[in-house]
Amino acid sequence: MTLSDSWRSALDPQRVMEMDVVRWQDEDAASCDEHLTVEEPFEVRLGHQSLAVIMRTPGHDIELALGFLLTEGIIQSAEDILSVQNDQDEDGLPLANVVNVTLRHATQQAAMQAHPATFERHFAVSASCGLCGKNSIADLMLTVPALEPDQLQISAETCYGLADQLNAQQAVFHHTGGLHAAGLFTSQGELLTLREDIGRHNAVDKVIGYGLSNTLFPYNEHILMVSGRTSFEIIQKALLARIPCVAAISAPSSMAVELAEKGGITLIGFLRNRSMNVYTHPERIVAR
Amino acid sequence: MTLSDSWRSALDPQRVMEMDVVRWQDEDAASCDEHLTVEEPFEVRLGHQSLAVIMRTPGHDIELALGFLLTEGIIQSAEDILSVQNDQDEDGLPLANVVNVTLRHATQQAAMQAHPATFERHFAVSASCGLCGKNSIADLMLTVPALEPDQLQISAETCYGLADQLNAQQAVFHHTGGLHAAGLFTSQGELLTLREDIGRHNAVDKVIGYGLSNTLFPYNEHILMVSGRTSFEIIQKALLARIPCVAAISAPSSMAVELAEKGGITLIGFLRNRSMNVYTHPERIVAR
Repeated sequence: MTLSDSWRSALDPQRVMEMDVVRWQDEDAASCDEHLTVEEPFEVRLGHQSLAVIMRTPGHDIELALGFLLTEGIIQSAEDILSVQNDQDEDGLPLANVVNVTLRHATQQAAMQAHPATFERHFAVSASCGLCGKNSIADLMLTVPALEPDQLQISAETCYGLADQLNAQQAVFHHTGGLHAAGLFTSQGELLTLREDIGRHNAVDKVIGYGLSNTLFPYNEHILMVSGRTSFEIIQKALLARIPCVAAISAPSSMAVELAEKGGITLIGFLRNRSMNVYTHPERIVAR
Repeated sequence: MTLSDSWRSALDPQRVMEMDVVRWQDEDAASCDEHLTVEEPFEVRLGHQSLAVIMRTPGHDIELALGFLLTEGIIQSAEDILSVQNDQDEDGLPLANVVNVTLRHATQQAAMQAHPATFERHFAVSASCGLCGKNSIADLMLTVPALEPDQLQISAETCYGLADQLNAQQAVFHHTGGLHAAGLFTSQGELLTLREDIGRHNAVDKVIGYGLSNTLFPYNEHILMVSGRTSFEIIQKALLARIPCVAAISAPSSMAVELAEKGGITLIGFLRNRSMNVYTHPERIVAR
């Protein structure tokens, strides 16, 4: 297998690994190199206590931890965080796959009251899971207020440009076929950041965490774009991050549409080839 | 929008819903009908106590409950189940989205000892989650024994036929763009069942549950085929169901490969156009 130089430079060994595979074509088998997307467990700790284990693609772990805390409703802003860094083992050496977060005392207390179950146990979250540990869907929808109506206007032309930018920036996906992408854009279509992960929800948490640590938050004039489908959990994360517009290359689910409608979020799907479907709150989309 | 009769017959209102959307093409917006994949919460109860809430596409709920219990390690065979049916509300009416399972006393006791946390609390599982509630990845890999070496031989020709059969049978996916499929095949490539769901893991649980309730289990000469990527959790489910071969149209993750190697599972990826990659245990694949 030969790689062009541009691909080679994109192959971060932390995120992509090589392995020998048996490649079959018709009746012939031959050994060859393949590239795999790395998936590894990552632990988020609060005050050195395990909060969650997330299956993720390494990279931007601090952002992932911050975004996860925001979209799980444990923090409301960057001010709730006193410190965040890789935790240490018994010998004081940093643990690569463990991030420890210290919350403000009041935030920690409020979180323990609002989410007692979360703090009573460890739980593991898969690469694509956003609902773990919640008691019921009804609880979720009750605890998250809808966005207030706003005057935000996004042109169709801006929307059409989002998918092109996401695709152009996706360095790893085309190579391993294994990564989801999420991008955070301004309402004028400027790409602020793009993150990739084997888990669609992690990619969203990473861009949301990026904004938290770069004081872009709150996102009340921003667009979240995801590379695949839109599930209920993606909209849930957008709602907790107060993002008014979510766009996706593929289809939304029925519950994603329902939550976007109730939550005041403009939901766009099948955004490709200068066309798109606007499922909810189309009032924010204008011709130019 | 016009639908051909063949599509119309495939549109189960439980699984596909229609809605009005604003469709933009270039500068023009028009109202039109679209079809959405239905995603709804589903509750699995053990002895009328909530065990898990799963986001799923309705249909084959009993199979989903049985497959979930098997791939979560709570049951080992159909004999562990005394009864399974929709639970009832206070007036004795069946609850459409709630299935109650009664386990044999010994199974219930064993499960409560092995998974105490599971029985202490309710938890929600997203449409694509397979790791919820586990304390650590290391625990997972310790508790599941590898498959014993076997004499199973699967021809490359058989493998090439799997993807075609899966595609041909996928009635809903092409229409809404929102469903994952899983198929269970014999080692000669005969399709035993296909299930679709908005969650990739649910589709796998449904085919595994199908086999449980149709006494196909154990699956020691079967092939599991999935429509998308192969994550760690898919291999975990295959391992708990003792399926020796997993094939996918797209890429596996690094941890999927690692677990398949350790677990004795033949893992095939990029199965398309009469070619495929065999990532682990290639000894089971032969030219003809």
